[in-house]
Amino acid sequence: MTRLYHVPLSPFCRKVRLTLAEKKVEVELVEERYWEQSPEFLRRSPAGKVPVLKINGRFLSESQAICEYLEETIPEPRLMPREPEARCEVRRLCAWFDDKFHEEVTSKLLYERVNKKLMGQGYPESRNVKSGAQKIKFHLDYLSWLLEQRRWLAGNEMTLADFAAAAHLSSLDYISDVDWNRSQNVKDWYAKIKSRPAFRSILADQVPGFPPPAHYADLDF
Amino acid sequence: MTRLYHVPLSPFCRKVRLTLAEKKVEVELVEERYWEQSPEFLRRSPAGKVPVLKINGRFLSESQAICEYLEETIPEPRLMPREPEARCEVRRLCAWFDDKFHEEVTSKLLYERVNKKLMGQGYPESRNVKSGAQKIKFHLDYLSWLLEQRRWLAGNEMTLADFAAAAHLSSLDYISDVDWNRSQNVKDWYAKIKSRPAFRSILADQVPGFPPPAHYADLDF
Repeated sequence: MTRLYHVPLSPFCRKVRLTLAEKKVEVELVEERYWEQSPEFLRRSPAGKVPVLKINGRFLSESQAICEYLEETIPEPRLMPREPEARCEVRRLCAWFDDKFHEEVTSKLLYERVNKKLMGQGYPESRNVKSGAQKIKFHLDYLSWLLEQRRWLAGNEMTLADFAAAAHLSSLDYISDVDWNRSQNVKDWYAKIKSRPAFRSILADQVPGFPPPAHYADLDF
Repeated sequence: MTRLYHVPLSPFCRKVRLTLAEKKVEVELVEERYWEQSPEFLRRSPAGKVPVLKINGRFLSESQAICEYLEETIPEPRLMPREPEARCEVRRLCAWFDDKFHEEVTSKLLYERVNKKLMGQGYPESRNVKSGAQKIKFHLDYLSWLLEQRRWLAGNEMTLADFAAAAHLSSLDYISDVDWNRSQNVKDWYAKIKSRPAFRSILADQVPGFPPPAHYADLDF
């Protein structure tokens, strides 16, 4: 049985969950309190991070490496284009979200508001929350600029870049930190991706102590 | 002409330089003061980071995306194995260095000691330097553990994972922050990779105000 060790609001885990669901891989989800760094968990994931995917008897870690593995072993439906330049653009945007957006926004909002409480690390630092709330505007504008030229983020087909972006934005939407009124084309893009069957499991997530807002799972938000 | 916008000690730029050199792509190196974020540079690299590779008339950014592009367009000599599991392991280790090692070690030593001065951001924070000097020991031990089981970091062939690791370690070696006496197999591995023709340009780097130690370019260090 394929098994994913994850936490529900992690954007890295969500990117892998979306990829698995799009490729119709049935997976057992196991919540992992990775911050407790149990020796058993560290054997599976030396970096001490989620997601970890158990598949074909092996433990794979690092979300981008896992998604590339899934793309190589289950090619259909494709989440990467065929042309090297277009593949480079997909990977650039995955790194944009998993590195830059994560550093400037996700870690400043989600981690301050949710992870700190779950891990017993105290209260949000308001300086960080303010900075994240400011920076997300720039990123939404960048998405909007991309979507003026393309149907999906990396081109005219949906790719892993859309999943990387939607993974971060959906986690922030769970805590009402995305202003969907900022640009219509970003909202339209998110509505398209949110209505895919692959998104269902993510919209059903519930984190104890953090009930999602009504619009979170609403396809007509 | 293929052109790489870079800074000499950036491990991300060095990973791309090693890949280009190994694949025998002639490249013009252009130093980019990326931290000044000139509008012209931001047009080429919206994330405001180096490396940026100008190739076939396009500007590519994000080091891992660039290296995957080079592997796809110039397959020989191969820097990625053929099996999906083995490719996943290469990408896991690239992420290990470019994410975890970078966060725990490179940013705490190289950026404190060198980048801050170059960018006019003041003096090293001794707390960070201490933390980086402590954490690098754990990483060297992890490398040593991998090399007990494998000829190269990700398996029995040299791959991009070796270049990712060597890129970080060579930048730190430039400021004498690597204890090569900690484990013999790590030292042997570095000696092997350092003696490759692809490494020559990196060993010739000179950063004004930061002369390298004598052992830096010495193949018999």
